[in-house]
Amino acid sequence: MNRQIILTSRPTGVAQANNFEIRHADDPILADGQIRVANRFLSVEPAMRGWIADAGNYSAPVGIGEVMRSLAVGEIVESRHPDYAVGTIVTGWFGWQERSAVEVSAVVRRVTEIDLPLSLALGVLGINGVTAHLALTMIGDPQPGETVLVSTAAGAVGSAVGQIATILGCRAVGIAGGPTKTGQCRTMFGYADAVDYKAPDLGGALDRACPTGIDIYFDNTAGAISDTVYPRLALGARVVICGTASIPSWDPWPQGPRIERYLLLKRARAQGFVIFDHQDRYAASVAQLATWVRSGELRYAEDILEGIEECPDALAGLYRGENQGKRVIRL
Amino acid sequence: MNRQIILTSRPTGVAQANNFEIRHADDPILADGQIRVANRFLSVEPAMRGWIADAGNYSAPVGIGEVMRSLAVGEIVESRHPDYAVGTIVTGWFGWQERSAVEVSAVVRRVTEIDLPLSLALGVLGINGVTAHLALTMIGDPQPGETVLVSTAAGAVGSAVGQIATILGCRAVGIAGGPTKTGQCRTMFGYADAVDYKAPDLGGALDRACPTGIDIYFDNTAGAISDTVYPRLALGARVVICGTASIPSWDPWPQGPRIERYLLLKRARAQGFVIFDHQDRYAASVAQLATWVRSGELRYAEDILEGIEECPDALAGLYRGENQGKRVIRL
Repeated sequence: MNRQIILTSRPTGVAQANNFEIRHADDPILADGQIRVANRFLSVEPAMRGWIADAGNYSAPVGIGEVMRSLAVGEIVESRHPDYAVGTIVTGWFGWQERSAVEVSAVVRRVTEIDLPLSLALGVLGINGVTAHLALTMIGDPQPGETVLVSTAAGAVGSAVGQIATILGCRAVGIAGGPTKTGQCRTMFGYADAVDYKAPDLGGALDRACPTGIDIYFDNTAGAISDTVYPRLALGARVVICGTASIPSWDPWPQGPRIERYLLLKRARAQGFVIFDHQDRYAASVAQLATWVRSGELRYAEDILEGIEECPDALAGLYRGENQGKRVIRL
Repeated sequence: MNRQIILTSRPTGVAQANNFEIRHADDPILADGQIRVANRFLSVEPAMRGWIADAGNYSAPVGIGEVMRSLAVGEIVESRHPDYAVGTIVTGWFGWQERSAVEVSAVVRRVTEIDLPLSLALGVLGINGVTAHLALTMIGDPQPGETVLVSTAAGAVGSAVGQIATILGCRAVGIAGGPTKTGQCRTMFGYADAVDYKAPDLGGALDRACPTGIDIYFDNTAGAISDTVYPRLALGARVVICGTASIPSWDPWPQGPRIERYLLLKRARAQGFVIFDHQDRYAASVAQLATWVRSGELRYAEDILEGIEECPDALAGLYRGENQGKRVIRL
């Protein structure tokens, strides 16, 4: 029997363990053009909150009674498609389940960097790393010597942003919660400095860490952290809006200081980035990221949970801040 | 005697008539390199509120006891600079006064389009028109068939934005206050549609006027109007942040709905524009604008007050919304 994690009710904020249940189901017979993937790792993403939310988002919400939408990496164990041979390692939209019977359109890519851990296809060589790389370069336009400030700096996306910014000659400064994560920023992810947003006087700490202002703000949080950052943007700054993790709910829509005036006074630019718009650049980005991983310039942290029964509480745990690194489930 | 308008006290919001006084002063003897300009028209700009404010802005505030900063257009009547002959018409930073003794660095440009009214050098052929042209094209990146929404659509900048958008093949929609201004948008400035923000249900009116969403929002107001616009941005929208006229004061800093989420969901970009950054493009822009004015494709409205004694209340009047067109003072 195949075990699957089903969304059974829609949360108002972040989905909790009791919004899911484990279902046992027979493996369906494959139709022409389908493949069956035995998943090795399932992904847990902050963005899942949005995929579950019933409000306007950039993809249709996961339906009640459906397998939770997820990226996964695994091996093709059965194939009714001529281009996808049994034994191929693939990553794609296979859901929170042990085995997935899917159209090949669910495949994001074949995993060819088999010298590296498979789980990286869900993290630094997956949408986290590619998001970091493409959003930083396409929207941030980093120039050598510039100051790049990253929120959730020790997270799966943020830790890659900081390191890529450093590789590109920028001075990376991280914002993270608590001394463990800020320490990880400095020692593991090569940030020039790191600031603890849970400590008093974030503004003063940013002034000291970014004495010439912030040329690029890579924002994964929005909320109170961003409110402290915007007044400190440098002239001509770029703000990469990649996520809004600090906002627990958009219903009712939260208020905050108006940012138009900062954008005007600083001739700054703020732009949203969604990785799904950039499939055409994905493969080249993964190849670049893998090169940096192999050379040791791009390090990563993983938070590996064991067994599919960990899935239901894994997303809520991310929002409790309990992970240190990219969270994945090993099957 | 030269008559000058002096800033005598600093307002907390928009400067009122009693923040200024008229001073009589002797014309100073010119130093080497200086010129004396007999001003024909003085400009009145919404941005003057910012030039007077003592808060962070994009230029140093006008000092108490100083002549009010202003663009003007006039004729050189005395010159101690070899490149600036008496009789030349120039526009530049000459202040609210009848005659200005200035360094030539105060000159923005020589006015060569002498077939057109001189006052246009302060409006459609001045920073208003150039701002409209450069901000729309450089930040808005208008493409044929796109919907361009303009706030303060009948104003000196907005009316040019709408017409230039139409010239470039876009569908221009204006937001203005009251039926007179929305009528002017439709009949004089060629907007495909115009919406009255003072009428009930601005959101519904925008939905009807922009049924496929808003590709470019040229924002001169911020505030409640923008709050209604952001949820209606189209995918990949561009927001040109040119002014914040609807916000009476930034102390205390006003709150509003957080816009990060709209920028993220719509992969939209918001960017501030300040004309003073783009001196290198100024002359070419004026030449293009003059061509459109001569062909009748670019129309303008002027609100001409007579006499320097009109200056002290002229700025407050702009914020009372009493002008219909670019406000200038004729001397």
